[in-house]
Amino acid sequence: MLSKAPHLFDAATRVAAGDSRWSGHTSDDYWAFVGPFGGVTAATMLRAIMEHPQRLGDPLALTVNFCAPVAQGPFDLDVRLIKANRSTQHWSVELTQDGGDIATVATAVLAVRRPSWSRQPASVPHAPPFEAARPYSTRSLKMSWVRQYDFRFVEGEPQLGAAPHAAPGSAFSKLWIADAAPRSIDMLSLLSMSDAFFGRIFHVRNEFVPFGTVSLTTYFHTAADELATEDITHILATADANVFHKSYGDQTGALWSPNGRLLATTTQIAYFKA
Amino acid sequence: MLSKAPHLFDAATRVAAGDSRWSGHTSDDYWAFVGPFGGVTAATMLRAIMEHPQRLGDPLALTVNFCAPVAQGPFDLDVRLIKANRSTQHWSVELTQDGGDIATVATAVLAVRRPSWSRQPASVPHAPPFEAARPYSTRSLKMSWVRQYDFRFVEGEPQLGAAPHAAPGSAFSKLWIADAAPRSIDMLSLLSMSDAFFGRIFHVRNEFVPFGTVSLTTYFHTAADELATEDITHILATADANVFHKSYGDQTGALWSPNGRLLATTTQIAYFKA
Repeated sequence: MLSKAPHLFDAATRVAAGDSRWSGHTSDDYWAFVGPFGGVTAATMLRAIMEHPQRLGDPLALTVNFCAPVAQGPFDLDVRLIKANRSTQHWSVELTQDGGDIATVATAVLAVRRPSWSRQPASVPHAPPFEAARPYSTRSLKMSWVRQYDFRFVEGEPQLGAAPHAAPGSAFSKLWIADAAPRSIDMLSLLSMSDAFFGRIFHVRNEFVPFGTVSLTTYFHTAADELATEDITHILATADANVFHKSYGDQTGALWSPNGRLLATTTQIAYFKA
Repeated sequence: MLSKAPHLFDAATRVAAGDSRWSGHTSDDYWAFVGPFGGVTAATMLRAIMEHPQRLGDPLALTVNFCAPVAQGPFDLDVRLIKANRSTQHWSVELTQDGGDIATVATAVLAVRRPSWSRQPASVPHAPPFEAARPYSTRSLKMSWVRQYDFRFVEGEPQLGAAPHAAPGSAFSKLWIADAAPRSIDMLSLLSMSDAFFGRIFHVRNEFVPFGTVSLTTYFHTAADELATEDITHILATADANVFHKSYGDQTGALWSPNGRLLATTTQIAYFKA
């Protein structure tokens, strides 16, 4: 299928077809603290659905629960079509290693999106164009996954080399996100980018603390063919948090096309130790 | 366990214990358009986890996918502990009828919430006290579930008897929500209330259109013992929408204690025909 070296993202999210049992392998190119970058794990699970012969329609909603760190190496994906009608499908995917130990579970809703009345109450955040924004230096960061993205902060750029904040800072960020090696944004990379924000607590405290996403939910507000028509390699994103309490904090986010269309919204809850 | 008639909410969410297979029955008191009110279905699925002998910790995150209408009558709940460690548990629940047909699936994360650094960047919306707000008349509405709640709109009260809006109205609502028969709010009723907003599209268009929640995710930002200490029977809530497009629209929401603590946040994606 590929005649040239695939994009690292496609290599990282590659799956081998089975009937209900699919398989994949973690990528060292998208490594986080103690396991693969969650966005790529989510995209890999969604890819198994997208490439499944029974798949109908476009991703509408996906929730991933990160139950345990995924270990470096191969994994199996148990892909199951739970329920389907003419226009929607409900799927579940379980990622297991070592012959059955569950590391990650996902549920997804796919839909054939029919034309309808349309309205976007949310309005695109103001930002200078991608080309005018300054790339964020990821050199000092150890996680390989951050180097696969081109982050360009418009607001809330972290100063993670500096001292922790004396008083809590803002949890809000506005930034452009692109694949470091340009790649047309599709549903898979959009999903991955919906997890590509730095932990909100790092922003608020301006320091790294033990952190891990527990559950991520992303909604897609565009059909795949509409997204293809946008033909974009970067998105404008905002992320914020409502609360950090008793070892868990949340994150909300929105991903916009440069043309001002809301492509996806996302929310997650994450563990922290502080 | 109960020596007096239970609250309708507790009757509606009652489950009978099994090992992995639990059972329940729909309630006519919480009926929506073509099936039970989703909030009560979600709360019933969570109750099966909460009453499971292996349950440890408090609800942290719950996602419910509504795959097909739940028919009036009995249902089975397949409750499964997917993964557990000392402080978190991952569960899944499948609601089936007629010997296996899946209607609803849920995943949940439970956690023993340890003390930590705490901060609430979000601030409680301004509102007059519950007692000073005017109850919303639900008399003209056919769905029985709305009569189980005492809605008191502070902003965005729908005028559903009036003509549809000529131009789209606001998707934002701010309201107090209480059980119509007062009941101390616990994790189960908090979850149910997180689905107790009217469809955002009804607000924007000021008319009923075919509508159904497809996927609901709620995060709990309080431990069960903290919530019990609040000892409250009503919450202040806000709900909004970002986009309606190609037959689907989203909803975001936040649920606050009268004391200004953020108790839960929620998001959902819903089908509409318009």
